[in-house]
Amino acid sequence: MRVAILAHEKFPDRAKTALGVLRYADHDVVAVLDRANDGRRVADLVPDVQDAPIVSGMADLEPDAVDTLLIGIAPIGGGFDESWREDVRTALEYGCDVISGLHYFLADDEEFARLAADNDCEIRDVRNPPADLTVADGVADQVDAEVILTVGTDCSVGKMTTTMELARDARAAGHDAAVIPTGQTGIMIEGWGTPIDRVVSDFAAGAVEELILEKGDDHDYLFVEGQGSIVHPAYSAVTLGILHGSMADTLVLCHNAGQDAVHGYESVALPSMQTYIDLYESIAAPVADSRVVAGALNTASLESDERAREAVDEYADALDRPATDVIRFGTDELLEVLC
Amino acid sequence: MRVAILAHEKFPDRAKTALGVLRYADHDVVAVLDRANDGRRVADLVPDVQDAPIVSGMADLEPDAVDTLLIGIAPIGGGFDESWREDVRTALEYGCDVISGLHYFLADDEEFARLAADNDCEIRDVRNPPADLTVADGVADQVDAEVILTVGTDCSVGKMTTTMELARDARAAGHDAAVIPTGQTGIMIEGWGTPIDRVVSDFAAGAVEELILEKGDDHDYLFVEGQGSIVHPAYSAVTLGILHGSMADTLVLCHNAGQDAVHGYESVALPSMQTYIDLYESIAAPVADSRVVAGALNTASLESDERAREAVDEYADALDRPATDVIRFGTDELLEVLC
Repeated sequence: MRVAILAHEKFPDRAKTALGVLRYADHDVVAVLDRANDGRRVADLVPDVQDAPIVSGMADLEPDAVDTLLIGIAPIGGGFDESWREDVRTALEYGCDVISGLHYFLADDEEFARLAADNDCEIRDVRNPPADLTVADGVADQVDAEVILTVGTDCSVGKMTTTMELARDARAAGHDAAVIPTGQTGIMIEGWGTPIDRVVSDFAAGAVEELILEKGDDHDYLFVEGQGSIVHPAYSAVTLGILHGSMADTLVLCHNAGQDAVHGYESVALPSMQTYIDLYESIAAPVADSRVVAGALNTASLESDERAREAVDEYADALDRPATDVIRFGTDELLEVLC
Repeated sequence: MRVAILAHEKFPDRAKTALGVLRYADHDVVAVLDRANDGRRVADLVPDVQDAPIVSGMADLEPDAVDTLLIGIAPIGGGFDESWREDVRTALEYGCDVISGLHYFLADDEEFARLAADNDCEIRDVRNPPADLTVADGVADQVDAEVILTVGTDCSVGKMTTTMELARDARAAGHDAAVIPTGQTGIMIEGWGTPIDRVVSDFAAGAVEELILEKGDDHDYLFVEGQGSIVHPAYSAVTLGILHGSMADTLVLCHNAGQDAVHGYESVALPSMQTYIDLYESIAAPVADSRVVAGALNTASLESDERAREAVDEYADALDRPATDVIRFGTDELLEVLC
């Protein structure tokens, strides 16, 4: 599948879907669309992922060079930015499928629906959950697999990345491990899953439980992609639904080095790491004996490896548990305690 | 409005919507439909609410004696019981409107939609939330009103009832108080509100915040109807969305006397009351300084007032806060600390 990824003005730092697909998905990325970085290459900005040219829009690509346009950014609220309309329109006129994780469903947009029909394209809104979800039975702990959930101090602290890195490296080490995707990026990478943030809150835990039951007896380890944070002013409901629905055995606490307030809600200070551990474990406890056993620190904001290593050591001390930056230093320290 | 309330085989103990409407709504209830109690009266089973005859179905009522059929029971999962179809069909043939809080939307049922159109009736699925909801901004604490949220040890422990009793008695005492309805029963009683359990989990806190902002500068006290429990295996996402979205000043912890496990999830033991207080306050803390200041105990399962008084005293001791049964002993003890 030859893919163009739309990431206007947010690539790479605020384009986690785009980065996730570049890093983990089995697609041939032919271009990233970012009018702010037109003419550069992915490798100029991100060293350790699949390289691709960056162009200003779909019109810069030949119609027969690309099969799919993938929306690679997810703004707060999940709306559609009208400045992207020309790219989506051009993609559909080229005969490309369009894959989107926005809350705004492109298939419900009158112009896009018409263009897709005219050009025999598929619009896949991966954030549109299945219609037959229901409430949790509280039985996710009955699967054979060890269930490992990434939790965080905030959104965008590396939960999806940590999940993907751990699962890939666990498989490379000979373990039978699968990913349970709960968000648009994970679903785009894995090709299945349920966008829990888009599930009605009564069914959030039930939808996670269903994913766990689907794969839980076929693998030894399930790496569950977490969402949000237990103390996020807007998204904590998603987080707790995943925590209780997955009945996870072990938790990996993800954090951005140096961050001290909730992104976009700067008046909300992050509590201490020990408080996070206490909150996640104590709120899980009546439902499942979930334990924070390790930490994953995103040190992308720190230039030197030496400073990053110090930050990781400080983080491990604060948690009183093993920790690392899975991108910078690999997953060995974590897999040792997880598998 | 002359209302018939459907509550087959669940009246009164497992028909909290029916009971809530009988007790608090400004409707003339002409009958309760319950084939298991045909021929009895509401007053035979529940002493302290509006009385009405109990009949076996809509066909027992004269077509011109009733304006509205209200679905007064909400089974786990919110599905439609096909044994109710004849009653809904008859109601629509009589020209009645139908109000339902089920997850299954009656307006989407082909037969009901056709009958409603043929007979010029309205089907109101109150659990169908508005389409324009969005994420929370974390600003509910900026309203003038004191925000008082009922929280619980489980579902069906009296949160809606406590909210309604407190608001009514606060108004009777001269306070300017309003109710913020977050579930189907509250919405049916108050005539507005948003069913948070049916809102996508990303927007759960935002939907509550919107309700608070709508009324928060017009009243001195907002009594927010809570949902579920912070440690419920299926519904905790709803609970936490309401807790963080409302940014409540004070919490009233509701509990059923003698209950020691989550209803329907008997393997999940309720933690201690002190644990509930710690969990609600500590998970709220990074977002809002919400404090459990009182308790409401449902002693309906205890026959004697003396035993009920003992249970309330034990509950107050366990909480180390004032407590009462708002139905049995009134709200004075609670209003003293709340208003």
